[in-house]
Amino acid sequence: MRHDPQRRAPGHYPFHFTFDPRFGDLDVNAHLNNVAYARFFEEGRVRLHASLGGLDMPGFRPIVANLTVDYLAEGRWPDPLTVGVGIARFGNSSYVVGLALFQKDACIALCDTVIVNRAVEGPGGAALPKSLRDALEGLRLDGSAT
Amino acid sequence: MRHDPQRRAPGHYPFHFTFDPRFGDLDVNAHLNNVAYARFFEEGRVRLHASLGGLDMPGFRPIVANLTVDYLAEGRWPDPLTVGVGIARFGNSSYVVGLALFQKDACIALCDTVIVNRAVEGPGGAALPKSLRDALEGLRLDGSAT
Amino acid sequence: MRHDPQRRAPGHYPFHFTFDPRFGDLDVNAHLNNVAYARFFEEGRVRLHASLGGLDMPGFRPIVANLTVDYLAEGRWPDPLTVGVGIARFGNSSYVVGLALFQKDACIALCDTVIVNRAVEGPGGAALPKSLRDALEGLRLDGSAT
Amino acid sequence: MRHDPQRRAPGHYPFHFTFDPRFGDLDVNAHLNNVAYARFFEEGRVRLHASLGGLDMPGFRPIVANLTVDYLAEGRWPDPLTVGVGIARFGNSSYVVGLALFQKDACIALCDTVIVNRAVEGPGGAALPKSLRDALEGLRLDGSAT
Repeated sequence: MRHDPQRRAPGHYPFHFTFDPRFGDLDVNAHLNNVAYARFFEEGRVRLHASLGGLDMPGFRPIVANLTVDYLAEGRWPDPLTVGVGIARFGNSSYVVGLALFQKDACIALCDTVIVNRAVEGPGGAALPKSLRDALEGLRLDGSAT
Repeated sequence: MRHDPQRRAPGHYPFHFTFDPRFGDLDVNAHLNNVAYARFFEEGRVRLHASLGGLDMPGFRPIVANLTVDYLAEGRWPDPLTVGVGIARFGNSSYVVGLALFQKDACIALCDTVIVNRAVEGPGGAALPKSLRDALEGLRLDGSAT
Repeated sequence: MRHDPQRRAPGHYPFHFTFDPRFGDLDVNAHLNNVAYARFFEEGRVRLHASLGGLDMPGFRPIVANLTVDYLAEGRWPDPLTVGVGIARFGNSSYVVGLALFQKDACIALCDTVIVNRAVEGPGGAALPKSLRDALEGLRLDGSAT
Repeated sequence: MRHDPQRRAPGHYPFHFTFDPRFGDLDVNAHLNNVAYARFFEEGRVRLHASLGGLDMPGFRPIVANLTVDYLAEGRWPDPLTVGVGIARFGNSSYVVGLALFQKDACIALCDTVIVNRAVEGPGGAALPKSLRDALEGLRLDGSAT
């Protein structure tokens, strides 16, 4: 991710959420802790899902299968954070949420989160419901249009 | 990581730390939250570093540059967790900590954490101090021996 | 609480749970954060409840109504913590869990947590089920026996 | 606190901070966890201190000596939270921060946090610096004026 300049541009992401870091996100080095970044990206992903009215639907049980974070710069308290969110890729039974974290106009981290549909047991997952796929299609990262 | 069976074997890791999950690590699904896994891996990495007497040394300022987690199974409370830790790879100015999380004899997640030496500013990082490299050499994942 | 020497004695508590602090519990002052103490006390309370087989029973919906913590000393990482837990008092529809936190033989904090039964709506709460009251009776703080 | 209607009124507090709960603040009951409330109150207290330019001053080392929280209602995600903050009382070497948490116009919790000056060792603490006392005087809860 870190070598793709598009991923560091706020406009690349169709969904944004701005929020405040907490003093409790700081670690002994007085920077926003790297695990706190994972919390911020979780919030971005869940807020995107909530913007669709939530993901409670028959045939869909989402599980986080992979989380990858590139840390680009140290985050600080108390300046607000903005997370940009969109859908980076689709598989048959999964999709990848692409995210970026911004503070004071700088991109301080990138994240890909792989979501797999575990509505049925066993390897591979279940196919994504068409209604979900349709809803998420409108939230693709702005890559294909470039 | 997830396709390498070695990475799921406790014996692959030279350092182990066993600890208890907390009720507060559970999320609304009553499973250990995926961000909590990142916290568990942080603990494993820091405990390994502490086992070397800490990483306070001239010419070394470690920064987490990348975190990659493969989630393999849902974790539960209150069964103890064991994290296995070792050094997966070395670069000139960086190294990769390889980790695995176990609960009730199952490997429930894998993690690679890239640590870069930011003792000097600018891209690329500073070379790892030789004393650090020597200490970490003894903690390599048991891959090269196979 | 802080002026009662009994409350600082491990033997005062019928239930104990020992666990490890996490690096992530440290704050910018490199001490265990005061909110982390609240997390530790939650764990002690929940582990006591779990020791009774859990609190899922008809007519009981426990809600935390009050939390009071006296901070006595700064906690450190990575020395293990022991939380002592017992029942301090009973009301008709509530009870008070009394707790203490120990590290390296020192009592570093005390806590009272008021649990109210909200199985019915409205002020005051519902009476505690007799089976719960009976189970908790055996876990009273060792005060009345002195 | 819970029996004082003044404490539940937003206008009682001279300082306010509005922020968003996080999905990760929810517990297995899908309510904002009671320990998360302690985190929210920490944020309110620290933001009030930051509004004064921070508390780094000679002769002052603040330690949280007591935290008392009255839980009044269950909090939800994702509606914003507002914390009201002020100074409830002064001692010679300590002061009490009084706080309230609001969501959707309801007061869902109250908190008193006792801060003691540990600039010198030993029981009792050190006297509050006059400059701190003066700054905090302007942030008293609106009780004395009634």
